[in-house]
Amino acid sequence: MEITAVVTVADDGGSSGRLRHDRGVLPPGDLRQALAALAGPDQLSVGNAALFQYRFPGDDALAGHPVGNLVLCGLMELVGDPVLALDHAAGMVGAVGRVLPMACEPLGIEADLEEDGKVTTIRGQHEVAVANGRVLEVRIAPAAPAACPEALKAIAEADWLVFGPGSWYTSVIPHLLVPELGTAIVASPARRLVTLNLAADNETAGLSLPDHLGALARYLPDLRVDIVLVDSHVVPDPDPVARAAASLGARIALASVAVQDGTARHDPVRMGHALVPLLGTAR
Amino acid sequence: MEITAVVTVADDGGSSGRLRHDRGVLPPGDLRQALAALAGPDQLSVGNAALFQYRFPGDDALAGHPVGNLVLCGLMELVGDPVLALDHAAGMVGAVGRVLPMACEPLGIEADLEEDGKVTTIRGQHEVAVANGRVLEVRIAPAAPAACPEALKAIAEADWLVFGPGSWYTSVIPHLLVPELGTAIVASPARRLVTLNLAADNETAGLSLPDHLGALARYLPDLRVDIVLVDSHVVPDPDPVARAAASLGARIALASVAVQDGTARHDPVRMGHALVPLLGTAR
Repeated sequence: MEITAVVTVADDGGSSGRLRHDRGVLPPGDLRQALAALAGPDQLSVGNAALFQYRFPGDDALAGHPVGNLVLCGLMELVGDPVLALDHAAGMVGAVGRVLPMACEPLGIEADLEEDGKVTTIRGQHEVAVANGRVLEVRIAPAAPAACPEALKAIAEADWLVFGPGSWYTSVIPHLLVPELGTAIVASPARRLVTLNLAADNETAGLSLPDHLGALARYLPDLRVDIVLVDSHVVPDPDPVARAAASLGARIALASVAVQDGTARHDPVRMGHALVPLLGTAR
Repeated sequence: MEITAVVTVADDGGSSGRLRHDRGVLPPGDLRQALAALAGPDQLSVGNAALFQYRFPGDDALAGHPVGNLVLCGLMELVGDPVLALDHAAGMVGAVGRVLPMACEPLGIEADLEEDGKVTTIRGQHEVAVANGRVLEVRIAPAAPAACPEALKAIAEADWLVFGPGSWYTSVIPHLLVPELGTAIVASPARRLVTLNLAADNETAGLSLPDHLGALARYLPDLRVDIVLVDSHVVPDPDPVARAAASLGARIALASVAVQDGTARHDPVRMGHALVPLLGTAR
């Protein structure tokens, strides 16, 4: 199995926001997270992944930066091409897959939010993610950035495209908003699987799980899906989700994929156990 | 051949000085240089060494820091033990050897300098290296730091101890000033080779090559040396150097070890060609 993670490059908060602002690089935070998640099992790779994730404490000039963000920033400046830089970083952590940016330029995210009958436009991935109010519409800026060519190629050649879980408006849907990516997703012969979130977060407050699926269709009307993976404990009654899935052409698959401590986080091992047989099914 | 570089940890200028001051870590600059010099030939190692040496340009919070200094700083904070951190970093660059700090705490260097008949005490490796005047005496602070135990072990087990080239007072002699290291150097059954510099730099202005050897004996009177390697073009008359070497028990070896562009820098390949047969000689 060859894994390619295609990652949003719209982060503008914290360390990524500072690096993007100060040095003009692609915000590295989400890319770093994907690299760490794909790190290999040998001692050097495990150590490098831990190093990438180590965030400098304190209040000096380095404070708040994970080492991996600084490494990615340096690599992108040194190598020039972010894809080559990410391939090198993947080698550093012995990644069992490839990490690609969805676009080769930093993107902005903005959203129209409604709160108490009043509509406001909020700019910035971080601001949108933490803002109160109901998202009426989410947009990227620029509206039509060039997609990363390697990402388009990976989508065209994939057996499966897997969407989510993640911040729906600021990490999952942005891919559908890049016109070239949306077209590639629809045109790909790959099958498509959507993993639903375990709980609404701030930006999706008030959005039901069926609404999550509806949002995908709204931003990419031609999207067809094969499987929607849902945690069996989160949906006592799966029928509404099944109906929303059916409207995208999908069946639902129920599995226990949350960590068992009661927090709304996916357990990587359980996710693997649920995904592998689904991705292995014959067409 | 197993190489262990034992490196001064008294740097207090530039990036190393800022990291040492802001974060209390061992100054990483000289350690990073040694790691880059020992990097392996495969693509990942070569790339990581280039990344370690890439210095952020600009004028933001990262400007002036080589990526490798930030990596070493993060590793030392994350791992706690600087020796384990350096061993991990050595793995990152596929180092053909080990890099150890000469002490596990940051050191200070100070020197009494004489200029126009006036004696001043200058503090800081960087300040001493760039100050005008003749060095009367150089000291480390604290005067008796604990040596790195792994360095003591490497010295005791070595076949050869190689001193220099490098800034004489701020990079070569400091090892002799750490009491435990001086004792280990004298006690080691290893043979000892001194590589003389090609030219005086600021801190050794006025110091002849024989004086360089005299300075070693002054700070470690029991030091015995087997071979003194001298560039054949730098000493038209080798006799004075040979006499100073003889007073340490050494013979001189003449070789062409400078780069051929006329600057006073050693050529790594020529150094290798000169050193390998010398280190291979039977006792």
